[in-house]
Amino acid sequence: MSGAAIDIRYMKLALSLGRRGMGQVWPNPAVGCVIVRDGRVVGRGWTQPRGRPHAEVEALARAGAAARGATAYVTLEPCAHHGKTPPCADALVKAGVGRVVAALEDTDPRVAGQGFARLRAAGIEVVTGVCAEEAARDHAGFFHRTDLGRPFVTLKLASSFDGRIATASGESQWITGPGARRLVHAMRMRHDAVMVGAGTARADDPALTVRDMGVARQPVRVVVSRHLDLPLMSGLARTARQVPVWLCHGPDVDREKLRTWEDLGAKLIACRLVGRSLDAASVLEGLGTAGLTRVFCEGGGALAASLLQADLVDELVGMTAGVVLGAEGRPAIGALGIGRLAEAPRFRLRDVRTSGPDLVHVWEKGE
Amino acid sequence: MSGAAIDIRYMKLALSLGRRGMGQVWPNPAVGCVIVRDGRVVGRGWTQPRGRPHAEVEALARAGAAARGATAYVTLEPCAHHGKTPPCADALVKAGVGRVVAALEDTDPRVAGQGFARLRAAGIEVVTGVCAEEAARDHAGFFHRTDLGRPFVTLKLASSFDGRIATASGESQWITGPGARRLVHAMRMRHDAVMVGAGTARADDPALTVRDMGVARQPVRVVVSRHLDLPLMSGLARTARQVPVWLCHGPDVDREKLRTWEDLGAKLIACRLVGRSLDAASVLEGLGTAGLTRVFCEGGGALAASLLQADLVDELVGMTAGVVLGAEGRPAIGALGIGRLAEAPRFRLRDVRTSGPDLVHVWEKGE
Repeated sequence: MSGAAIDIRYMKLALSLGRRGMGQVWPNPAVGCVIVRDGRVVGRGWTQPRGRPHAEVEALARAGAAARGATAYVTLEPCAHHGKTPPCADALVKAGVGRVVAALEDTDPRVAGQGFARLRAAGIEVVTGVCAEEAARDHAGFFHRTDLGRPFVTLKLASSFDGRIATASGESQWITGPGARRLVHAMRMRHDAVMVGAGTARADDPALTVRDMGVARQPVRVVVSRHLDLPLMSGLARTARQVPVWLCHGPDVDREKLRTWEDLGAKLIACRLVGRSLDAASVLEGLGTAGLTRVFCEGGGALAASLLQADLVDELVGMTAGVVLGAEGRPAIGALGIGRLAEAPRFRLRDVRTSGPDLVHVWEKGE
Repeated sequence: MSGAAIDIRYMKLALSLGRRGMGQVWPNPAVGCVIVRDGRVVGRGWTQPRGRPHAEVEALARAGAAARGATAYVTLEPCAHHGKTPPCADALVKAGVGRVVAALEDTDPRVAGQGFARLRAAGIEVVTGVCAEEAARDHAGFFHRTDLGRPFVTLKLASSFDGRIATASGESQWITGPGARRLVHAMRMRHDAVMVGAGTARADDPALTVRDMGVARQPVRVVVSRHLDLPLMSGLARTARQVPVWLCHGPDVDREKLRTWEDLGAKLIACRLVGRSLDAASVLEGLGTAGLTRVFCEGGGALAASLLQADLVDELVGMTAGVVLGAEGRPAIGALGIGRLAEAPRFRLRDVRTSGPDLVHVWEKGE
């Protein structure tokens, strides 16, 4: 078996299976696995909601005895440590697979090459680096948390042609159409958390949940509010026991407010200040420590600006409607304090599509 | 011959030939003509720079005796009036074509069905409405001037992801890349005039010419400036005798300034005021009277806003760079005085493409 050619279509399939777990499996990586024998897929699996069983165990269970001598395509190095479940590397050895084709090595210090080493020690051929770039993008959240201690951040802004997210009077529903709004729900679903600033939470009383998608695990709802100036009669306050609400606040917050929100069921995360505002890096560090790997920020302008200023935005999603609101409209991104054009944060266009009447454009960090 | 099927590919060819004249033939329409006999193209023509010879005459000259009994595909009704040249309808009759297939009827009162009538009277079969929608778009400038007394207006804005056209200090070169800038030159070439506000003319000292495209006729350079507050040491002042400069000013302009600009070779167009600003409708009326059919407006924010407020923008071209400038940056579109979202001007997405690192999106008027 192990002499058969490597077929990247199986890895592409494993990647697409793995993506099903995005937003559902944190703090674990969303891995996909495909087991192939005699040119036939005998097992498929992906990391299950809340992180277990792992993808390999799922796929091996489907394959049963057919796994013997087969090739396992897996989007990340199989784990080698005893956590709440036995290591996947051991499960692959036990199942008798002939070869493991992996996209990437895991940088988690508890794995970092040891999964591969254990497989090789058992006489299993190991090939790595297949579709590595695509896998690196899919696992970016997991790697960000492991390597940088913070989640991957997607900043989404739905705006008018001229970059406004509301009229001067604050009217913002609806600038973009139903197709774009549905796309937002699909994007929320693929993130561990949805994050907004206090101004947006006050102005819109948003639910921030994923609706009509049959989602297994709702994203955490994060609100960044230095003073916890959030209405206690809001939807977030009312539903904090059904869907998690995490509040990132300053060190000088009123103790009474803090206790009230704790009593409502919210998780409180204390963050540092930079000047008079919450330090965006400290906010993300707090979220990373609490287990988040992928955060979807939906504004408003001030939070967006603080993330951009601190170079903490990894992906920028623009949804542009064919409407013009003019200079009195509320800006999508607040003041950045940029003097020269050369200092401005730059992003690279990765994807463009239309959604009904709106334009959707995705940019990633870098020149 | 006239019994042969109509093939819309020939009309598509005629349309693409006609487009070669866009920006070059004002105040005439940019028409294309293809003469087909026995399934073979025997003549092709398009309206020549400055408007003559007309497309039909060009194509008939190429076809010679082969035009007899042939089908002429023409993107607009052939003219029927004696202007500086004899009518094209007569030329088609004289050449003995068997059939004329036209995209549209001309709404110019001097033509308006008379071209077709003259052809039919001579026993020539006439078919109309082939690729009518595409032709209506191509001839929109000509029809706007004929029917509304004003040119078709394209508003182009090159901005950051967040809709800013310059940093707070006014730095705008270069937000978009060389590919987008080259595209701007190609777009200028297809318009009769390039128009900017006085602020842009002062800040950027722009040449507003078409460069590196081998253009036969440079677009007119229009500056909208109530008080003619324009530097006399500018490139526009220096080159007004080489490439036309037209200045749209208010009724209360300083006579001295007016004479100075006339002496420099500029054409002066007096316009009405609305409140304390120039009336955008009056500006376009003046340009229409002077013969322009297609105007390409490149900002700045105040002129863009005055056109949008008066519902005078027919096409919106966005060029979006992957750079973020923040709320202190200069807005692409000035204040519009919009209270409710429902009042905001709406545009429909027609085309999206990339140009190097930038996103180019084209929107047309309408829901």
